[in-house]
Amino acid sequence: MAASLQDVARMVGVSISTVSRALHRPDMVDAETRKRIDVAVSALGYVPQGVGRALVSRRTRSVGAVVPRIGASAFAQTIEALRQGLGKANYTLLLAQPAINEQADLRPLRTLIERGVDGVVLLGNDCPSAWLDLIAKNGLPVATIWADAGNALPGAIGFDNYIAGQQAAEHLLSLAHREFAFISGHLASNQRARQRYQGLLETIAAGGGRLSRELIVEADYGFADGYEAARHLLSKKLPFSALICGNDYLALGAMAGLREQGLDIPHDISVIGFNDSEFSPFVNPPLTTIRFPSVEIGTIAAETLLAAIDSKKAMPPPQMLPTALVRRSSTGPLQHGRKHG
Amino acid sequence: MAASLQDVARMVGVSISTVSRALHRPDMVDAETRKRIDVAVSALGYVPQGVGRALVSRRTRSVGAVVPRIGASAFAQTIEALRQGLGKANYTLLLAQPAINEQADLRPLRTLIERGVDGVVLLGNDCPSAWLDLIAKNGLPVATIWADAGNALPGAIGFDNYIAGQQAAEHLLSLAHREFAFISGHLASNQRARQRYQGLLETIAAGGGRLSRELIVEADYGFADGYEAARHLLSKKLPFSALICGNDYLALGAMAGLREQGLDIPHDISVIGFNDSEFSPFVNPPLTTIRFPSVEIGTIAAETLLAAIDSKKAMPPPQMLPTALVRRSSTGPLQHGRKHG
Repeated sequence: MAASLQDVARMVGVSISTVSRALHRPDMVDAETRKRIDVAVSALGYVPQGVGRALVSRRTRSVGAVVPRIGASAFAQTIEALRQGLGKANYTLLLAQPAINEQADLRPLRTLIERGVDGVVLLGNDCPSAWLDLIAKNGLPVATIWADAGNALPGAIGFDNYIAGQQAAEHLLSLAHREFAFISGHLASNQRARQRYQGLLETIAAGGGRLSRELIVEADYGFADGYEAARHLLSKKLPFSALICGNDYLALGAMAGLREQGLDIPHDISVIGFNDSEFSPFVNPPLTTIRFPSVEIGTIAAETLLAAIDSKKAMPPPQMLPTALVRRSSTGPLQHGRKHG
Repeated sequence: MAASLQDVARMVGVSISTVSRALHRPDMVDAETRKRIDVAVSALGYVPQGVGRALVSRRTRSVGAVVPRIGASAFAQTIEALRQGLGKANYTLLLAQPAINEQADLRPLRTLIERGVDGVVLLGNDCPSAWLDLIAKNGLPVATIWADAGNALPGAIGFDNYIAGQQAAEHLLSLAHREFAFISGHLASNQRARQRYQGLLETIAAGGGRLSRELIVEADYGFADGYEAARHLLSKKLPFSALICGNDYLALGAMAGLREQGLDIPHDISVIGFNDSEFSPFVNPPLTTIRFPSVEIGTIAAETLLAAIDSKKAMPPPQMLPTALVRRSSTGPLQHGRKHG
């Protein structure tokens, strides 16, 4: 049973109109009361009347997705596949994005649920329990996609980032590289980044390679971030012949940073990314990368969610799809006459 | 006065429940009737009850945007700036996308309006009059962004693609290039592409250059499309020393296609794009391009729309922002010893 405005007012000990004002005209309510109301709204999973409620008896034929970044990103292909899959069944995909790096921002999810959707997709988030609670309390099926194997709920569709990390390291070890550097996504806030790191770390260690702490840089997942990180790594004057980048955006930026210092890729330094982004075959040199099942995730998410909406059954157990090395020209055998290291 | 379900039923001469079925369970209504209902719904600007209607008296604090492509695209920076601008005023941006290349697809726009939004953004569309009608009939302010100067409605925010085309051609002419090839977006369906073409065509003609019909290829705006188009152009065995690409996605793909045939950029062929996409400074060689005011468009759209929502006044006259040449290394002076042409 979904919570009502009354339930919220009762929990906080204020009038219904105060709760309503806090939700619609927050500037008219003092910060302390607003905060207590927020806590109650969150605890009860309350969603304002009107919309979801008005449509409770019929399909809205829309699915809402919360994504970390709507524009250019590693998720673009997944979003497109999801949209196409839903579109085939005459469903519209509505997208909303929280303030960047603020997983605590419940507003986009709340907006989607308020507007009335038949199901929810959470893409590439660590899925804070407050989000999952809000969805569950509104009785909606949810697909958590780009989920990591270590963090997989029912309805999860993703892949094993540990194995992806392992694949990258194994490829470079097989080319005789032993001295590594790593530009990573943010490890504290990103489960996938942590698992990739763990996979490559254990593989490098097992293969007798070295990844010194000083040659690990954390960065946002943008081109410019990769460029800056590569310059920073070179400034340490420590030897490495292979650079592992947390995704292809970082890798493209990093290659520009290395080139600018006169280094040749792959002769002086081999570079590998993750994701197999759309641009990766077309850059110079074409980028070796670990392919993620980006399109498949979107397609399966659409099918699974539509089936759950139709059947009113629970979402299926986690589905983890394979990742694979895509070997192009940005990696090559260790060269002894190289400029760096 | 917004149209009702009854109005639609009366216009078509069927029962209200048939109209309702056609909207929510289209598979249960025969195609002929469905088509007539679609025509009536469109003519009347009808939007289903419940949502927009239920919220008529209060702000939804959300803005809906219809975008041609949600994933990686030239629009990514604009969408992010728009989201940030709206976010500052506590507004959520909801995005929906029509089936690709189907401007006739009214569904995403309808879904957004049904869900209740305070304003609408149409991004990078030619803005079919059916869309504008539906928005006007629901009394919502609308910003048409990435609008071309030649196609600018009130609330338009964009830039002059004719001038952008001119800037690209002038740059190449100043480097002594006289033989051109052009990979364009689809001219029939894209006003911006047509204007870019017109600007560069008149500039090339005025400067005594040549752009033969056989060296003009139309393509979708993707990396792979640029790659294929470049290969196709080379297969004609006609001379050209400068390749103009309709956006940076095409240009990156085209450079890969040229390199594969052993051509050096810019020594053998100069390449220029449009947009100054996020990747363009980081590719090899860094891409010369015409910068579009992508971020500014998003920022101004958010401000303008929020002001119109607050004041309930009409949107301001069209705002056209400047474009500029960003000179990098993919273009250079005409070389007489080059391989091609």
